[in-house]
Amino acid sequence: MHRQTLTIVGVGLIGGSIGLAARQRGVVRHVRGVGRHPASLDRAVALGAIDEAFVSLEEAVAGADMVVFCTPVDRIAAQVLEAAPFCAPATVLTDAGSTKATIVRAIDGNLPKGVAFVGGHPLAGSEKRGPDAADCDLFQDRWTVLTPTDTTDPGALQRVRALWHGLGSLTRLMPPEEHDRALALTSHLPHLLASALAGLLPQEWHELTATGFRDTTRTAAGDPALWAAIFDHNRAALLAALLRLEHRLHEFRTAVETHDNAAIVQLLAQAKEVRDALGS
Amino acid sequence: MHRQTLTIVGVGLIGGSIGLAARQRGVVRHVRGVGRHPASLDRAVALGAIDEAFVSLEEAVAGADMVVFCTPVDRIAAQVLEAAPFCAPATVLTDAGSTKATIVRAIDGNLPKGVAFVGGHPLAGSEKRGPDAADCDLFQDRWTVLTPTDTTDPGALQRVRALWHGLGSLTRLMPPEEHDRALALTSHLPHLLASALAGLLPQEWHELTATGFRDTTRTAAGDPALWAAIFDHNRAALLAALLRLEHRLHEFRTAVETHDNAAIVQLLAQAKEVRDALGS
Repeated sequence: MHRQTLTIVGVGLIGGSIGLAARQRGVVRHVRGVGRHPASLDRAVALGAIDEAFVSLEEAVAGADMVVFCTPVDRIAAQVLEAAPFCAPATVLTDAGSTKATIVRAIDGNLPKGVAFVGGHPLAGSEKRGPDAADCDLFQDRWTVLTPTDTTDPGALQRVRALWHGLGSLTRLMPPEEHDRALALTSHLPHLLASALAGLLPQEWHELTATGFRDTTRTAAGDPALWAAIFDHNRAALLAALLRLEHRLHEFRTAVETHDNAAIVQLLAQAKEVRDALGS
Repeated sequence: MHRQTLTIVGVGLIGGSIGLAARQRGVVRHVRGVGRHPASLDRAVALGAIDEAFVSLEEAVAGADMVVFCTPVDRIAAQVLEAAPFCAPATVLTDAGSTKATIVRAIDGNLPKGVAFVGGHPLAGSEKRGPDAADCDLFQDRWTVLTPTDTTDPGALQRVRALWHGLGSLTRLMPPEEHDRALALTSHLPHLLASALAGLLPQEWHELTATGFRDTTRTAAGDPALWAAIFDHNRAALLAALLRLEHRLHEFRTAVETHDNAAIVQLLAQAKEVRDALGS
Protein backbone atom coordinates (compact mmCIF):
# COMPACT_ATOMS: atom_id res chain seq x y z
CA MET A 1 0.00 0.00 0.00
CA HIS A 2 3.01 2.29 0.42
CA ARG A 3 2.91 3.44 -3.23
CA GLN A 4 -0.73 4.50 -3.10
CA THR A 5 -2.57 7.81 -3.01
CA LEU A 6 -5.15 8.22 -0.24
CA THR A 7 -7.84 10.90 -0.40
CA ILE A 8 -9.41 12.05 2.86
CA VAL A 9 -12.79 13.75 2.57
CA GLY A 10 -13.22 16.03 5.60
CA VAL A 11 -10.03 16.92 7.46
CA GLY A 12 -11.35 17.37 11.01
CA LEU A 13 -10.42 15.36 14.09
CA ILE A 14 -10.84 11.95 12.43
CA GLY A 15 -9.74 12.83 8.90
CA GLY A 16 -6.78 14.82 10.20
CA SER A 17 -5.74 11.94 12.47
CA ILE A 18 -5.92 9.47 9.56
CA GLY A 19 -3.73 11.80 7.51
CA LEU A 20 -1.17 12.30 10.28
CA ALA A 21 -0.94 8.58 10.98
CA ALA A 22 -0.79 7.62 7.28
CA ARG A 23 2.00 10.10 6.57
CA GLN A 24 4.06 9.53 9.71
CA ARG A 25 3.82 5.74 9.39
CA GLY A 26 4.42 5.72 5.64
CA VAL A 27 1.17 3.82 5.06
CA VAL A 28 0.64 5.47 1.66
CA ARG A 29 2.78 7.50 -0.72
CA HIS A 30 0.62 10.59 -0.93
CA VAL A 31 -2.28 12.02 1.07
CA ARG A 32 -4.86 14.35 -0.43
CA GLY A 33 -7.38 16.25 1.66
CA VAL A 34 -10.65 17.72 0.44
CA GLY A 35 -13.06 19.96 2.32
CA ARG A 36 -15.33 22.96 2.11
CA HIS A 37 -13.29 25.23 4.36
CA PRO A 38 -9.97 26.47 2.89
CA ALA A 39 -8.81 27.51 6.38
CA SER A 40 -9.15 23.93 7.68
CA LEU A 41 -7.34 22.58 4.62
CA ASP A 42 -4.48 25.06 5.05
CA ARG A 43 -4.25 24.09 8.70
CA ALA A 44 -4.21 20.37 7.78
CA VAL A 45 -1.31 20.99 5.37
CA ALA A 46 0.56 23.06 7.98
CA LEU A 47 0.08 20.34 10.60
CA GLY A 48 1.39 17.67 8.22
CA ALA A 49 -1.93 15.83 8.06
CA ILE A 50 -2.18 16.04 4.25
CA ASP A 51 0.25 16.62 1.39
CA GLU A 52 -2.16 18.40 -0.92
CA ALA A 53 -5.47 20.25 -0.49
CA PHE A 54 -8.53 20.22 -2.78
CA VAL A 55 -11.87 22.00 -2.66
CA SER A 56 -13.28 19.91 -5.55
CA LEU A 57 -14.36 16.39 -4.63
CA GLU A 58 -14.19 15.37 -8.31
CA GLU A 59 -10.55 16.45 -8.60
CA ALA A 60 -9.57 15.05 -5.23
CA VAL A 61 -10.72 11.51 -6.02
CA ALA A 62 -9.48 11.37 -9.63
CA GLY A 63 -6.56 8.95 -9.72
CA ALA A 64 -6.71 8.15 -5.99
CA ASP A 65 -6.32 4.50 -4.95
CA MET A 66 -8.42 4.81 -1.83
CA VAL A 67 -10.87 7.41 -0.52
CA VAL A 68 -12.00 7.68 3.10
CA PHE A 69 -15.03 9.81 3.92
CA CYS A 70 -14.75 11.51 7.34
CA THR A 71 -17.70 13.87 7.04
CA PRO A 72 -20.89 13.98 9.20
CA VAL A 73 -23.01 10.82 8.88
CA ASP A 74 -25.85 12.60 7.08
CA ARG A 75 -23.52 13.60 4.24
CA ILE A 76 -21.42 10.46 3.66
CA ALA A 77 -23.69 8.39 1.38
CA ALA A 78 -24.48 11.33 -0.91
CA GLN A 79 -20.79 12.23 -1.16
CA VAL A 80 -19.79 8.64 -1.93
CA LEU A 81 -22.37 8.45 -4.73
CA GLU A 82 -21.29 11.88 -5.98
CA ALA A 83 -17.59 10.96 -6.03
CA ALA A 84 -17.82 7.43 -7.43
CA PRO A 85 -18.26 8.33 -11.14
CA PHE A 86 -14.97 10.24 -11.00
CA CYS A 87 -13.02 7.40 -9.43
CA ALA A 88 -10.72 5.19 -11.49
CA PRO A 89 -11.60 1.47 -11.73
CA ALA A 90 -10.41 -0.50 -8.67
CA THR A 91 -10.66 2.52 -6.39
CA VAL A 92 -11.77 1.53 -2.90
CA LEU A 93 -14.04 3.86 -0.94
CA THR A 94 -14.61 3.65 2.79
CA ASP A 95 -15.84 5.89 5.58
CA ALA A 96 -15.44 6.66 9.28
CA GLY A 97 -19.08 7.39 10.12
CA SER A 98 -20.51 6.61 13.56
CA THR A 99 -23.57 4.89 12.06
CA LYS A 100 -23.44 2.24 9.40
CA ALA A 101 -26.73 0.67 8.20
CA THR A 102 -28.29 3.81 6.71
CA ILE A 103 -25.05 4.69 4.91
CA VAL A 104 -24.18 1.19 3.69
CA ARG A 105 -27.70 0.42 2.43
CA ALA A 106 -27.90 3.74 0.55
CA ILE A 107 -24.67 2.94 -1.31
CA ASP A 108 -25.07 -0.82 -1.83
CA GLY A 109 -25.84 -1.59 -5.49
CA ASN A 110 -25.55 2.05 -6.58
CA LEU A 111 -21.84 2.28 -7.44
CA PRO A 112 -20.29 2.19 -10.95
CA LYS A 113 -18.72 -1.12 -11.90
CA GLY A 114 -15.20 -1.52 -10.50
CA VAL A 115 -15.61 0.96 -7.67
CA ALA A 116 -16.08 -0.67 -4.26
CA PHE A 117 -17.30 0.63 -0.90
CA VAL A 118 -16.69 -0.84 2.57
CA GLY A 119 -18.32 0.75 5.60
CA GLY A 120 -16.02 1.52 8.53
CA HIS A 121 -16.06 3.13 11.97
CA PRO A 122 -12.96 3.73 14.09
CA LEU A 123 -13.96 3.65 17.78
CA ALA A 124 -11.86 6.63 18.69
CA GLY A 125 -12.48 10.31 19.01
CA SER A 126 -13.21 12.99 21.54
CA GLU A 127 -15.54 15.89 22.10
CA LYS A 128 -13.00 18.12 20.31
CA ARG A 129 -13.20 19.09 16.63
CA GLY A 130 -11.04 20.24 13.74
CA PRO A 131 -7.59 19.37 12.41
CA ASP A 132 -5.87 20.94 15.43
CA ALA A 133 -7.36 18.15 17.57
CA ALA A 134 -5.90 15.49 15.27
CA ASP A 135 -3.54 12.94 16.79
CA CYS A 136 -1.34 10.51 14.86
CA ASP A 137 -1.86 7.90 17.62
CA LEU A 138 -5.65 8.28 17.84
CA PHE A 139 -6.25 4.80 16.41
CA GLN A 140 -3.34 2.98 18.05
CA ASP A 141 -4.59 -0.27 19.61
CA ARG A 142 -8.22 0.88 19.22
CA TRP A 143 -10.86 -1.07 17.35
CA THR A 144 -12.16 -0.13 13.93
CA VAL A 145 -15.38 -1.90 12.95
CA LEU A 146 -15.77 -2.75 9.27
CA THR A 147 -19.24 -3.65 8.02
CA PRO A 148 -19.09 -5.68 4.80
CA THR A 149 -22.33 -6.98 3.29
CA ASP A 150 -23.11 -9.92 0.99
CA THR A 151 -22.12 -7.82 -2.01
CA THR A 152 -18.84 -6.43 -0.62
CA ASP A 153 -15.78 -7.16 -2.75
CA PRO A 154 -13.37 -9.30 -0.66
CA GLY A 155 -10.30 -7.62 -2.16
CA ALA A 156 -11.66 -4.19 -1.28
CA LEU A 157 -12.32 -5.35 2.29
CA GLN A 158 -8.72 -6.58 2.55
CA ARG A 159 -7.37 -3.22 1.38
CA VAL A 160 -9.49 -1.31 3.92
CA ARG A 161 -8.35 -3.64 6.70
CA ALA A 162 -4.74 -3.12 5.66
CA LEU A 163 -5.22 0.66 5.77
CA TRP A 164 -6.53 0.55 9.36
CA HIS A 165 -3.86 -1.90 10.48
CA GLY A 166 -1.30 0.48 9.00
CA LEU A 167 -2.78 3.32 11.06
CA GLY A 168 -2.27 1.25 14.22
CA SER A 169 -5.85 0.06 14.64
CA LEU A 170 -7.30 -3.39 15.27
CA THR A 171 -10.21 -4.38 13.04
CA ARG A 172 -13.41 -6.32 13.66
CA LEU A 173 -16.07 -7.27 11.12
CA MET A 174 -19.78 -6.91 11.91
CA PRO A 175 -22.99 -6.59 9.90
CA PRO A 176 -24.00 -2.89 9.69
CA GLU A 177 -27.19 -3.44 11.69
CA GLU A 178 -25.34 -5.20 14.51
CA HIS A 179 -22.78 -2.39 14.60
CA ASP A 180 -25.61 0.10 14.97
CA ARG A 181 -27.30 -1.85 17.78
CA ALA A 182 -24.02 -2.06 19.67
CA LEU A 183 -23.03 1.57 19.13
CA ALA A 184 -26.51 2.76 20.14
CA LEU A 185 -25.68 1.39 23.59
CA THR A 186 -21.93 2.05 23.75
CA SER A 187 -21.84 5.54 22.23
CA HIS A 188 -25.11 7.15 21.18
CA LEU A 189 -27.10 6.48 24.37
CA PRO A 190 -24.18 7.62 26.59
CA HIS A 191 -24.12 10.88 24.63
CA LEU A 192 -27.87 11.33 25.03
CA LEU A 193 -27.63 10.61 28.78
CA ALA A 194 -24.68 12.94 29.30
CA SER A 195 -26.60 15.69 27.54
CA ALA A 196 -29.82 15.03 29.44
CA LEU A 197 -27.92 15.27 32.74
CA ALA A 198 -25.76 18.29 31.85
CA GLY A 199 -28.81 20.19 30.66
CA LEU A 200 -30.44 19.95 34.10
CA LEU A 201 -27.63 21.75 35.97
CA PRO A 202 -28.56 25.28 37.05
CA GLN A 203 -25.89 27.99 37.04
CA GLU A 204 -25.83 28.34 40.84
CA TRP A 205 -24.77 24.70 41.28
CA HIS A 206 -21.90 24.72 38.77
CA GLU A 207 -19.27 24.93 41.51
CA LEU A 208 -20.92 22.02 43.33
CA THR A 209 -19.81 19.59 40.60
CA ALA A 210 -16.79 17.35 41.09
CA THR A 211 -15.14 14.67 38.94
CA GLY A 212 -18.25 12.43 38.98
CA PHE A 213 -20.47 14.97 37.24
CA ARG A 214 -17.69 16.11 34.93
CA ASP A 215 -16.80 12.59 33.77
CA THR A 216 -20.42 11.56 33.37
CA THR A 217 -21.27 14.61 31.23
CA ARG A 218 -17.97 15.11 29.34
CA THR A 219 -19.24 13.87 25.98
CA ALA A 220 -22.09 16.43 26.09
CA ALA A 221 -19.52 18.98 24.89
CA GLY A 222 -19.65 17.33 21.45
CA ASP A 223 -21.04 19.11 18.40
CA PRO A 224 -24.90 19.26 18.55
CA ALA A 225 -25.46 19.06 14.78
CA LEU A 226 -23.13 16.07 14.32
CA TRP A 227 -24.82 14.18 17.15
CA ALA A 228 -28.36 15.08 16.08
CA ALA A 229 -27.54 13.52 12.69
CA ILE A 230 -26.18 10.38 14.41
CA PHE A 231 -29.31 10.09 16.58
CA ASP A 232 -31.56 10.40 13.53
CA HIS A 233 -29.52 7.88 11.48
CA ASN A 234 -29.61 5.34 14.26
CA ARG A 235 -33.09 6.20 15.50
CA ALA A 236 -34.56 2.71 15.98
CA ALA A 237 -31.55 1.22 17.76
CA LEU A 238 -31.11 4.33 19.91
CA LEU A 239 -34.77 4.26 20.98
CA ALA A 240 -34.46 0.54 21.81
CA ALA A 241 -31.37 1.20 23.93
CA LEU A 242 -33.12 4.12 25.64
CA LEU A 243 -36.05 1.86 26.47
CA ARG A 244 -33.71 -0.63 28.14
CA LEU A 245 -32.15 2.20 30.13
CA GLU A 246 -35.58 3.51 31.18
CA HIS A 247 -36.40 0.04 32.51
CA ARG A 248 -33.16 -0.06 34.47
CA LEU A 249 -33.82 3.41 35.90
CA HIS A 250 -37.23 2.15 36.95
CA GLU A 251 -35.56 -0.72 38.82
CA PHE A 252 -33.32 1.79 40.61
CA ARG A 253 -36.33 4.03 41.37
CA THR A 254 -38.30 1.16 42.88
CA ALA A 255 -35.35 0.00 44.99
CA VAL A 256 -34.70 3.52 46.35
CA GLU A 257 -38.40 4.24 46.95
CA THR A 258 -38.87 1.05 48.94
CA HIS A 259 -35.60 1.35 50.92
CA ASP A 260 -34.55 -1.98 49.37
CA ASN A 261 -30.88 -1.70 50.25
CA ALA A 262 -30.05 -5.21 49.03
CA ALA A 263 -31.53 -4.46 45.60
CA ILE A 264 -29.61 -1.16 45.32
CA VAL A 265 -26.36 -2.86 46.28
CA GLN A 266 -27.03 -5.61 43.76
CA LEU A 267 -27.70 -3.15 40.92
CA LEU A 268 -24.58 -1.13 41.79
CA ALA A 269 -22.40 -4.22 42.23
CA GLN A 270 -23.40 -5.66 38.85
CA ALA A 271 -22.58 -2.31 37.19
CA LYS A 272 -19.26 -2.07 39.05
CA GLU A 273 -18.30 -5.53 37.81
CA VAL A 274 -18.87 -4.43 34.20
CA ARG A 275 -17.10 -1.11 34.66
CA ASP A 276 -14.10 -2.69 36.41
CA ALA A 277 -13.74 -5.13 33.51
CA LEU A 278 -13.43 -2.23 31.04
CA GLY A 279 -10.41 -0.73 32.80
CA SER A 280 -9.68 2.99 32.87
CA MET B 1 -4.48 25.91 64.71
CA HIS B 2 -0.90 24.71 64.31
CA ARG B 3 -0.64 23.62 67.97
CA GLN B 4 -3.74 21.43 67.82
CA THR B 5 -4.37 17.68 67.71
CA LEU B 6 -6.66 16.47 64.91
CA THR B 7 -8.34 13.05 65.07
CA ILE B 8 -9.43 11.47 61.78
CA VAL B 9 -12.08 8.75 62.07
CA GLY B 10 -11.71 6.47 59.02
CA VAL B 11 -8.40 6.67 57.16
CA GLY B 12 -9.48 5.83 53.61
CA LEU B 13 -9.25 8.03 50.52
CA ILE B 14 -10.76 11.12 52.18
CA GLY B 15 -9.46 10.64 55.72
CA GLY B 16 -6.01 9.72 54.43
CA SER B 17 -5.93 12.79 52.19
CA ILE B 18 -6.93 15.05 55.08
CA GLY B 19 -4.12 13.58 57.16
CA LEU B 20 -1.51 13.92 54.41
CA ALA B 21 -2.52 17.52 53.70
CA ALA B 22 -2.70 18.46 57.40
CA ARG B 23 0.74 17.03 58.12
CA GLN B 24 2.52 18.25 54.99
CA ARG B 25 1.05 21.75 55.31
CA GLY B 26 1.58 21.97 59.07
CA VAL B 27 -2.10 22.68 59.64
CA VAL B 28 -2.10 20.95 63.04
CA ARG B 29 0.57 19.76 65.46
CA HIS B 30 -0.45 16.11 65.65
CA VAL B 31 -2.72 13.82 63.60
CA ARG B 32 -4.40 10.77 65.10
CA GLY B 33 -6.16 8.15 63.00
CA VAL B 34 -8.78 5.70 64.20
CA GLY B 35 -10.32 2.80 62.32
CA ARG B 36 -11.51 -0.78 62.49
CA HIS B 37 -8.83 -2.25 60.24
CA PRO B 38 -5.29 -2.36 61.72
CA ALA B 39 -3.84 -2.96 58.23
CA SER B 40 -5.32 0.31 56.93
CA LEU B 41 -4.07 2.17 60.00
CA ASP B 42 -0.54 0.75 59.59
CA ARG B 43 -0.61 1.75 55.95
CA ALA B 44 -1.79 5.28 56.86
CA VAL B 45 1.14 5.64 59.28
CA ALA B 46 3.59 4.30 56.70
CA LEU B 47 2.27 6.73 54.06
CA GLY B 48 2.63 9.67 56.44
CA ALA B 49 -1.12 10.32 56.62
CA ILE B 50 -1.30 10.04 60.43
CA ASP B 51 1.18 10.29 63.30
CA GLU B 52 -0.53 7.82 65.57
CA ALA B 53 -3.06 4.99 65.15
CA PHE B 54 -5.98 4.03 67.41
CA VAL B 55 -8.57 1.28 67.28
CA SER B 56 -10.58 2.78 70.17
CA LEU B 57 -12.76 5.76 69.23
CA GLU B 58 -12.94 6.76 72.90
CA GLU B 59 -9.15 6.93 73.25
CA ALA B 60 -8.64 8.57 69.85
CA VAL B 61 -10.89 11.55 70.65
CA ALA B 62 -9.79 12.07 74.27
CA GLY B 63 -7.82 15.31 74.37
CA ALA B 64 -8.19 16.04 70.67
CA ASP B 65 -9.02 19.60 69.63
CA MET B 66 -10.88 18.64 66.50
CA VAL B 67 -12.34 15.38 65.16
CA VAL B 68 -13.29 14.77 61.53
CA PHE B 69 -15.46 11.76 60.69
CA CYS B 70 -14.63 10.26 57.28
CA THR B 71 -16.66 7.06 57.55
CA PRO B 72 -19.63 5.96 55.39
CA VAL B 73 -22.67 8.24 55.69
CA ASP B 74 -24.78 5.64 57.47
CA ARG B 75 -22.27 5.44 60.35
CA ILE B 76 -21.31 9.09 60.93
CA ALA B 77 -24.14 10.30 63.18
CA ALA B 78 -23.94 7.26 65.46
CA GLN B 79 -20.16 7.62 65.74
CA VAL B 80 -20.39 11.32 66.52
CA LEU B 81 -22.91 10.66 69.31
CA GLU B 82 -20.77 7.78 70.57
CA ALA B 83 -17.56 9.83 70.62
CA ALA B 84 -18.96 13.10 72.01
CA PRO B 85 -19.09 12.10 75.72
CA PHE B 86 -15.35 11.35 75.62
CA CYS B 87 -14.42 14.69 74.06
CA ALA B 88 -12.99 17.51 76.13
CA PRO B 89 -15.05 20.73 76.38
CA ALA B 90 -14.54 23.00 73.33
CA THR B 91 -13.77 20.07 71.05
CA VAL B 92 -15.13 20.66 67.55
CA LEU B 93 -16.50 17.71 65.58
CA THR B 94 -17.09 17.74 61.85
CA ASP B 95 -17.50 15.23 59.04
CA ALA B 96 -16.85 14.63 55.34
CA GLY B 97 -20.05 12.76 54.48
CA SER B 98 -21.65 13.05 51.02
CA THR B 99 -25.09 13.67 52.51
CA LYS B 100 -25.87 16.22 55.19
CA ALA B 101 -29.48 16.62 56.34
CA THR B 102 -29.94 13.14 57.84
CA ILE B 103 -26.61 13.37 59.66
CA VAL B 104 -26.92 16.95 60.87
CA ARG B 105 -30.52 16.54 62.11
CA ALA B 106 -29.62 13.32 63.99
CA ILE B 107 -26.85 15.13 65.87
CA ASP B 108 -28.45 18.56 66.39
CA GLY B 109 -29.45 19.02 70.02
CA ASN B 110 -27.99 15.69 71.13
CA LEU B 111 -24.43 16.67 72.03
CA PRO B 112 -23.01 17.25 75.53
CA LYS B 113 -22.62 20.88 76.51
CA GLY B 114 -19.42 22.43 75.14
CA VAL B 115 -18.95 19.93 72.29
CA ALA B 116 -19.92 21.32 68.87
CA PHE B 117 -20.63 19.71 65.50
CA VAL B 118 -20.52 21.31 62.07
CA GLY B 119 -21.53 19.28 58.99
CA GLY B 120 -19.09 19.30 56.10
CA HIS B 121 -18.58 17.77 52.65
CA PRO B 122 -15.44 18.21 50.54
CA LEU B 123 -16.40 17.97 46.85
CA ALA B 124 -13.44 15.84 45.96
CA GLY B 125 -12.80 12.15 45.64
CA SER B 126 -12.62 9.39 43.09
CA GLU B 127 -13.89 5.89 42.52
CA LYS B 128 -10.77 4.59 44.33
CA ARG B 129 -10.67 3.60 48.00
CA GLY B 130 -8.27 3.21 50.89
CA PRO B 131 -5.29 5.14 52.25
CA ASP B 132 -3.14 4.22 49.23
CA ALA B 133 -5.44 6.37 47.07
CA ALA B 134 -4.93 9.37 49.41
CA ASP B 135 -3.52 12.55 47.86
CA CYS B 136 -2.25 15.58 49.82
CA ASP B 137 -3.56 17.88 47.07
CA LEU B 138 -7.02 16.29 46.83
CA PHE B 139 -8.73 19.38 48.26
CA GLN B 140 -6.57 22.05 46.64
CA ASP B 141 -8.82 24.72 45.09
CA ARG B 142 -11.85 22.45 45.45
CA TRP B 143 -15.01 23.44 47.30
CA THR B 144 -15.94 22.12 50.71
CA VAL B 145 -19.56 22.75 51.67
CA LEU B 146 -20.23 23.42 55.36
CA THR B 147 -23.81 23.14 56.57
CA PRO B 148 -24.33 25.11 59.79
CA THR B 149 -27.84 25.28 61.31
CA ASP B 150 -29.55 27.79 63.59
CA THR B 151 -27.93 26.11 66.58
CA THR B 152 -24.36 25.86 65.24
CA ASP B 153 -21.73 27.57 67.39
CA PRO B 154 -20.14 30.37 65.31
CA GLY B 155 -16.70 29.78 66.83
CA ALA B 156 -16.86 26.08 65.91
CA LEU B 157 -17.84 26.99 62.34
CA GLN B 158 -14.86 29.32 62.11
CA ARG B 159 -12.50 26.58 63.28
CA VAL B 160 -13.85 24.08 60.74
CA ARG B 161 -13.54 26.67 57.94
CA ALA B 162 -9.95 27.34 59.00
CA LEU B 163 -9.16 23.61 58.88
CA TRP B 164 -10.41 23.30 55.29
CA HIS B 165 -8.68 26.50 54.21
CA GLY B 166 -5.50 25.09 55.71
CA LEU B 167 -5.96 21.91 53.63
CA GLY B 168 -6.15 24.04 50.47
CA SER B 169 -9.93 24.00 50.04
CA LEU B 170 -12.41 26.79 49.39
CA THR B 171 -15.50 26.78 51.61
CA ARG B 172 -19.15 27.57 50.96
CA LEU B 173 -21.99 27.60 53.50
CA MET B 174 -25.37 26.04 52.69
CA PRO B 175 -28.32 24.70 54.70
CA PRO B 176 -28.05 20.87 54.88
CA GLU B 177 -31.25 20.34 52.87
CA GLU B 178 -30.07 22.63 50.06
CA HIS B 179 -26.73 20.80 49.97
CA ASP B 180 -28.59 17.52 49.58
CA ARG B 181 -30.83 18.81 46.77
CA ALA B 182 -27.78 20.09 44.90
CA LEU B 183 -25.66 16.98 45.44
CA ALA B 184 -28.55 14.72 44.40
CA LEU B 185 -28.22 16.28 40.95
CA THR B 186 -24.46 16.89 40.82
CA SER B 187 -23.24 13.62 42.33
CA HIS B 188 -25.81 11.02 43.38
CA LEU B 189 -27.89 11.01 40.17
CA PRO B 190 -24.74 10.89 37.96
CA HIS B 191 -23.64 7.83 39.91
CA LEU B 192 -27.03 6.17 39.51
CA LEU B 193 -27.03 6.94 35.76
CA ALA B 194 -23.49 5.70 35.25
CA SER B 195 -24.41 2.46 37.01
CA ALA B 196 -27.66 2.04 35.09
CA LEU B 197 -25.78 2.44 31.80
CA ALA B 198 -22.75 0.28 32.69
CA GLY B 199 -25.03 -2.51 33.88
CA LEU B 200 -26.62 -2.82 30.43
CA LEU B 201 -23.38 -3.60 28.60
CA PRO B 202 -23.09 -7.24 27.51
CA GLN B 203 -19.68 -8.92 27.52
CA GLU B 204 -19.51 -9.23 23.71
CA TRP B 205 -19.69 -5.45 23.30
CA HIS B 206 -16.96 -4.55 25.81
CA GLU B 207 -14.42 -3.88 23.08
CA LEU B 208 -16.91 -1.65 21.25
CA THR B 209 -16.67 0.99 23.99
CA ALA B 210 -14.56 4.10 23.50
CA THR B 211 -13.87 7.17 25.65
CA GLY B 212 -17.54 8.28 25.61
CA PHE B 213 -18.81 5.14 27.35
CA ARG B 214 -15.81 4.99 29.66
CA ASP B 215 -16.11 8.60 30.82
CA THR B 216 -19.88 8.40 31.21
CA THR B 217 -19.70 5.24 33.35
CA ARG B 218 -16.43 5.85 35.25
CA THR B 219 -18.05 6.59 38.60
CA ALA B 220 -19.90 3.25 38.47
CA ALA B 221 -16.65 1.67 39.69
CA GLY B 222 -17.32 3.19 43.13
CA ASP B 223 -18.07 1.03 46.16
CA PRO B 224 -21.66 -0.35 46.01
CA ALA B 225 -22.27 -0.35 49.77
CA LEU B 226 -21.04 3.23 50.24
CA TRP B 227 -23.24 4.47 47.40
CA ALA B 228 -26.29 2.47 48.46
CA ALA B 229 -26.05 4.21 51.84
CA ILE B 230 -25.78 7.61 50.14
CA PHE B 231 -28.83 6.88 47.95
CA ASP B 232 -30.85 5.87 50.98
CA HIS B 233 -29.76 8.89 53.05
CA ASN B 234 -30.67 11.28 50.28
CA ARG B 235 -33.67 9.33 49.03
CA ALA B 236 -36.20 12.15 48.55
CA ALA B 237 -33.83 14.53 46.78
CA LEU B 238 -32.40 11.74 44.61
CA LEU B 239 -35.87 10.62 43.52
CA ALA B 240 -36.80 14.24 42.69
CA ALA B 241 -33.64 14.62 40.59
CA LEU B 242 -34.35 11.28 38.88
CA LEU B 243 -37.86 12.49 38.03
CA ARG B 244 -36.44 15.60 36.37
CA LEU B 245 -34.06 13.41 34.38
CA GLU B 246 -36.85 11.08 33.33
CA HIS B 247 -38.76 14.09 32.00
CA ARG B 248 -35.72 15.23 30.04
CA LEU B 249 -35.21 11.73 28.60
CA HIS B 250 -38.85 11.81 27.54
CA GLU B 251 -38.20 15.07 25.67
CA PHE B 252 -35.26 13.43 23.90
CA ARG B 253 -37.35 10.34 23.12
CA THR B 254 -40.16 12.41 21.59
CA ALA B 255 -37.73 14.47 19.49
CA VAL B 256 -35.96 11.36 18.15
CA GLU B 257 -39.23 9.47 17.53
CA THR B 258 -40.70 12.34 15.53
CA HIS B 259 -37.50 13.13 13.57
CA ASP B 260 -37.59 16.62 15.12
CA ASN B 261 -34.03 17.54 14.27
CA ALA B 262 -34.40 21.13 15.49
CA ALA B 263 -35.57 19.92 18.91
CA ILE B 264 -32.68 17.43 19.18
CA VAL B 265 -30.14 20.10 18.25
CA GLN B 266 -31.68 22.49 20.77
CA LEU B 267 -31.53 19.93 23.60
CA LEU B 268 -27.92 19.03 22.74
CA ALA B 269 -26.86 22.66 22.31
CA GLN B 270 -28.28 23.69 25.69
CA ALA B 271 -26.43 20.80 27.35
CA LYS B 272 -23.20 21.66 25.52
CA GLU B 273 -23.44 25.24 26.76
CA VAL B 274 -23.64 24.01 30.37
CA ARG B 275 -20.86 21.45 29.92
CA ASP B 276 -18.54 23.91 28.16
CA ALA B 277 -19.02 26.36 31.07
CA LEU B 278 -17.79 23.71 33.54
CA GLY B 279 -14.42 23.28 31.80
CA SER B 280 -12.54 20.02 31.77
